Amino acid sequence: MSLNSFGHLLRFTTWGESHGSAIGAVVDGCPPGLALSEADIQPFLDKRRPGQNKFTTQRQEPDEVRILSGVYEGRTTGTPISLFIENIDQRSKDYSDVAAKYRPGHADYAYDAKYGLRDPRGGGRSSARETASRVAAGAVARKIIPGVTITAYLVNIGGIAIDRSRFDLAEINRNPFWCPDAVTAGLWAEHLDAARKSGSSLGAIVECVATGVPAGWGSPLYHKLDAQLASAAMSINAVKAVEIGDGFAVAALRGEENADRMRPGADGNPEFLSNHAGGIAGGISTGQPIVLRMALKPTSSILTPVETITRDGEAAEIVTKGRHDPCVGIRAAPVLEAMVALVLADAMLLHRGQTGR
Amino acid sequence: MSLNSFGHLLRFTTWGESHGSAIGAVVDGCPPGLALSEADIQPFLDKRRPGQNKFTTQRQEPDEVRILSGVYEGRTTGTPISLFIENIDQRSKDYSDVAAKYRPGHADYAYDAKYGLRDPRGGGRSSARETASRVAAGAVARKIIPGVTITAYLVNIGGIAIDRSRFDLAEINRNPFWCPDAVTAGLWAEHLDAARKSGSSLGAIVECVATGVPAGWGSPLYHKLDAQLASAAMSINAVKAVEIGDGFAVAALRGEENADRMRPGADGNPEFLSNHAGGIAGGISTGQPIVLRMALKPTSSILTPVETITRDGEAAEIVTKGRHDPCVGIRAAPVLEAMVALVLADAMLLHRGQTGR
Amino acid sequence: MSLNSFGHLLRFTTWGESHGSAIGAVVDGCPPGLALSEADIQPFLDKRRPGQNKFTTQRQEPDEVRILSGVYEGRTTGTPISLFIENIDQRSKDYSDVAAKYRPGHADYAYDAKYGLRDPRGGGRSSARETASRVAAGAVARKIIPGVTITAYLVNIGGIAIDRSRFDLAEINRNPFWCPDAVTAGLWAEHLDAARKSGSSLGAIVECVATGVPAGWGSPLYHKLDAQLASAAMSINAVKAVEIGDGFAVAALRGEENADRMRPGADGNPEFLSNHAGGIAGGISTGQPIVLRMALKPTSSILTPVETITRDGEAAEIVTKGRHDPCVGIRAAPVLEAMVALVLADAMLLHRGQTGR
Amino acid sequence: MSLNSFGHLLRFTTWGESHGSAIGAVVDGCPPGLALSEADIQPFLDKRRPGQNKFTTQRQEPDEVRILSGVYEGRTTGTPISLFIENIDQRSKDYSDVAAKYRPGHADYAYDAKYGLRDPRGGGRSSARETASRVAAGAVARKIIPGVTITAYLVNIGGIAIDRSRFDLAEINRNPFWCPDAVTAGLWAEHLDAARKSGSSLGAIVECVATGVPAGWGSPLYHKLDAQLASAAMSINAVKAVEIGDGFAVAALRGEENADRMRPGADGNPEFLSNHAGGIAGGISTGQPIVLRMALKPTSSILTPVETITRDGEAAEIVTKGRHDPCVGIRAAPVLEAMVALVLADAMLLHRGQTGR
Repeated sequence: MSLNSFGHLLRFTTWGESHGSAIGAVVDGCPPGLALSEADIQPFLDKRRPGQNKFTTQRQEPDEVRILSGVYEGRTTGTPISLFIENIDQRSKDYSDVAAKYRPGHADYAYDAKYGLRDPRGGGRSSARETASRVAAGAVARKIIPGVTITAYLVNIGGIAIDRSRFDLAEINRNPFWCPDAVTAGLWAEHLDAARKSGSSLGAIVECVATGVPAGWGSPLYHKLDAQLASAAMSINAVKAVEIGDGFAVAALRGEENADRMRPGADGNPEFLSNHAGGIAGGISTGQPIVLRMALKPTSSILTPVETITRDGEAAEIVTKGRHDPCVGIRAAPVLEAMVALVLADAMLLHRGQTGR
Repeated sequence: MSLNSFGHLLRFTTWGESHGSAIGAVVDGCPPGLALSEADIQPFLDKRRPGQNKFTTQRQEPDEVRILSGVYEGRTTGTPISLFIENIDQRSKDYSDVAAKYRPGHADYAYDAKYGLRDPRGGGRSSARETASRVAAGAVARKIIPGVTITAYLVNIGGIAIDRSRFDLAEINRNPFWCPDAVTAGLWAEHLDAARKSGSSLGAIVECVATGVPAGWGSPLYHKLDAQLASAAMSINAVKAVEIGDGFAVAALRGEENADRMRPGADGNPEFLSNHAGGIAGGISTGQPIVLRMALKPTSSILTPVETITRDGEAAEIVTKGRHDPCVGIRAAPVLEAMVALVLADAMLLHRGQTGR
Repeated sequence: MSLNSFGHLLRFTTWGESHGSAIGAVVDGCPPGLALSEADIQPFLDKRRPGQNKFTTQRQEPDEVRILSGVYEGRTTGTPISLFIENIDQRSKDYSDVAAKYRPGHADYAYDAKYGLRDPRGGGRSSARETASRVAAGAVARKIIPGVTITAYLVNIGGIAIDRSRFDLAEINRNPFWCPDAVTAGLWAEHLDAARKSGSSLGAIVECVATGVPAGWGSPLYHKLDAQLASAAMSINAVKAVEIGDGFAVAALRGEENADRMRPGADGNPEFLSNHAGGIAGGISTGQPIVLRMALKPTSSILTPVETITRDGEAAEIVTKGRHDPCVGIRAAPVLEAMVALVLADAMLLHRGQTGR
Repeated sequence: MSLNSFGHLLRFTTWGESHGSAIGAVVDGCPPGLALSEADIQPFLDKRRPGQNKFTTQRQEPDEVRILSGVYEGRTTGTPISLFIENIDQRSKDYSDVAAKYRPGHADYAYDAKYGLRDPRGGGRSSARETASRVAAGAVARKIIPGVTITAYLVNIGGIAIDRSRFDLAEINRNPFWCPDAVTAGLWAEHLDAARKSGSSLGAIVECVATGVPAGWGSPLYHKLDAQLASAAMSINAVKAVEIGDGFAVAALRGEENADRMRPGADGNPEFLSNHAGGIAGGISTGQPIVLRMALKPTSSILTPVETITRDGEAAEIVTKGRHDPCVGIRAAPVLEAMVALVLADAMLLHRGQTGR
């Protein structure tokens, strides 16, 4: 019951703090015989890498991953895969202000309340820096489910939603926001740039679609595929909401609108006439695309001075300087992809173990 | 890794199908020495009990719980608590239609895809009947955290939201909808009655607030309190979305709006000036009320004939007769309370084990 | 992390006390589609059933098992299987003596030290009565691995070991001791009868052999097949020692004696020239028979008055009257078989999940 | 359910192969606020370190541990502690012989049967090199239970047992065998040296005593303290048997001999008149010293040519050259201490969580 682990048959454990010497993940349960090298992982880390444009933190981390175990002559051996990423750009900054005062919106106060002490350097363990480990682990997971394609993109920044009529997946690699709507990407650029310059930050909504998942994955009742996805998404820094398929909109639907009708499909599988369910029924995949969305709050590190208290309970004011993402939602897209890959690969292995299929 | 179990130090396992002879839960890890009898559990089951008015299914189940183990002379002994509820009102109905065809919106097709067979009687294991076991387990959990008050109520049925300016918790026991707004309760009655009469169903949003949770509960990073709550809520039948605090609305907030400022409180604890976070930061409770919402889809069992396929892949049409809740969200309120109690009691025990506090 | 659960993909949870109204097990993870009825389970319970001769306790329990869930029309559905056994012969005995004083050799003092209270009726949860639940669960496990044959028998009672030159498996059903050596069975009968009449009790060693296990089951490093078996055996009441293959005797072997040589076998699989390893290497099955032994202490309930203390810490003396097995090792044989079946079935499912084989 | 993890509230995961670039452990669940540095861990690694005399392998590994996370300003923070040990003395040896043939007594065949491939360099993951990670993790565990003293020593090498009348714990640091009997240590030196020179190896029995464990630790029924210890010991390379207290000798005891009588103790706690139980009853500690023993087979790597088969199933002969411990039992003593520390620290945290004590 490592509380820094996730998954069942495919289970990964992450370790490391924002300004420690390194971070990493141990991925256990990867099937043997898969081709795996650093080159399979690096591209995903590169997508999440900071410092690539003005819309993400200026911390410079190459995020070069090393595989320390579990691979022999280019193939996984079935033993734990240790993934190792050095922290390069730790600043010898003075953290005494953060150490002494609680930054509103951050986990500072909660960590102190829980542990009685905390590592204040860049948020320590609660920093989104940890998500690099997830992305590395997620790249391993993808190798387990080669038939599944997982794509995350932003559909809302700062309250500005994309226009679904302009939705084009090909756009997401053409702008710094993984935005599938070129026009909205332009609006976001302006809006976010203004927020950044004023020392503020914006929230976001990330959507993720997984295609190629066969019907039958997921383990009801308490490890339903949607419950696993919700838990996975909610474990990402700054996430406050998760929905599957139509999500909150189902509240306004009638039964006959919501139920996804079926008819015989050309390929022998059922053809669904709609996907309100987002590809999951009863906690089990239906064979339709899995669709989920998560909302991320605006970065809590802002330049506006805010009222707070010190560790000693005294009134104080704090300004969070330093290098921060003005919208954490952007770099969360590859993280969500990784978490979805980890959930799905685990579900595949479980399904195979449980049923032999 | 029982996939029908939930929790860590407080861990419960449920078993049973809608039309089997009984259902139940085994609650393991309850601390010793707590006063516990059936009378502590029954009131919560009574809240969830079907057949109490025209807005819930007409199946008549007394849902009388028996404690079969783990209690001696009125006190918990620290050993597993077996909770047992007989199924009384199983109809000797003909299930051949449901057995042969997949009901759209239900888990029928997914279960068959996963397991190769299924119990068609009333949905078998995928029926919301199972949630009675959760409610019983939740009543045990409440005994572990006597200082915590957990209240769930509906804030939206069929797209009609409550008016927050009329919010009055005292109202929730005065109408059949756990609605904190008497006016909206009236609207819902009309709307739902019309839907019911037309053989349709409506979706809903349930909100839950837990007060009295001290700062420090929750286990980052992969068993964050919010991730646990999201997983717990999403595991409830028909739930498609979960949010904590401001939830999806955070996407439209700016950093300075979202961060909950603090000042020294009268009681020595920090006083927060807002609660956008919904009582959780970094996956750990902050001492503020914990606030979450979940959306439930409209009941998939409707009288409208819908297009579907048979088990053999042939085109077919199905009408779901039988006894059903026209809005599953209503009876989900006590279920959500139970799940929140189970998550919080577990978090308390974990926190105590981890830190000695 | 239910501490009353065991296993991974096949995971069972037991509940119940010696003199509660019932005991039972929930078996989760059983693959779907297996033929299963009470008739598959009852014969194994009958082997463990008390009161069958003068060498076991005179408590009369029919141990009739009911399957309450997880089976539909004679086939497992993949959902939790709830197994239920009523306690019939609970005596309305006066337990005040056991409640007030600690019986040496029993768990009374330890339970009080842990929990602050205990159910004194027949030992409560610490009674071997619980093992009926294991035997029922084990019968389910056997259905998962039909090619595996598991046989346990006694090789030592009260220090009298069998003579391996007379070893004949066919004998084990011809005497009340599951003894594979008819001559030794006679000696045990005399020895145990004398001990019983004098109010004493004897220890025992049980051996178990599993054939038909293919090479490759088991999960190194911390869930090695032998580690799982050791944990399973040691969890049985009164067990104080476990060994695999040559066990403690390996200390006196030289490397060239111990290493099991291989040569090409007629069936294409390797043929091993010896089985010092007991069928497990590196925590993984080798395809040879799996051989383990466990030692059980003499029943702690004896008629000799023994020095002890009261709950209040006062000096006292206690005589344990009541119905007891003079040698708990005898009825432990079917329990060990069940535990081995549960470990192996779990290992099979895990292996299938991990590797697809 | 990482299968390379062990423990519940204190849970560690190890990774790494014998000839990979590094090995390590992630220790999760360590309480916050404990003083911890590399200097607390290194002495235990030094005890296990190879190459210190002619009775252990000549591989030269400094085994310098680095703490990569979970500690800030010399104190644990409650977050995962990543322990990292570089492999220095990997030989650029030719492993083609080991890759092509199965070494009898080793895990080669079993790993191939399970995974379809294996890392042949020095045994890969199945090498005892991994136990350095356990020793490092165990040193962290000791910080959690400062009142507990854990000492392991050898009581038998090659069939030569110590003479208990000469037992002197102070001796164990005065000879290379952790032998508490100086005379026997001399005999072992001769015997082992002869075995080593002839290219053979010897088995051993290691005993471990833990004092200072209060009554009440351990979680019945399936995570009993003795079951956890048995699993922990059996997970160590080459271990084939485990016993607690009198162990296998209980088979020859009578009930009145075996039951440990109690009387009021001077300190208010019960005083036990004997310790046949080895400090555990009903799976829970009794407050007496915990005593366990494990047997290790002789090293399978020997210079005698032995009959075997190739990966292709052809008859072959193999001689295991290279650097090996002639008696793996010696260096297993600090490993057993570490595993016992990890089990006990976990049991303490669980007990605290479960009961608040």
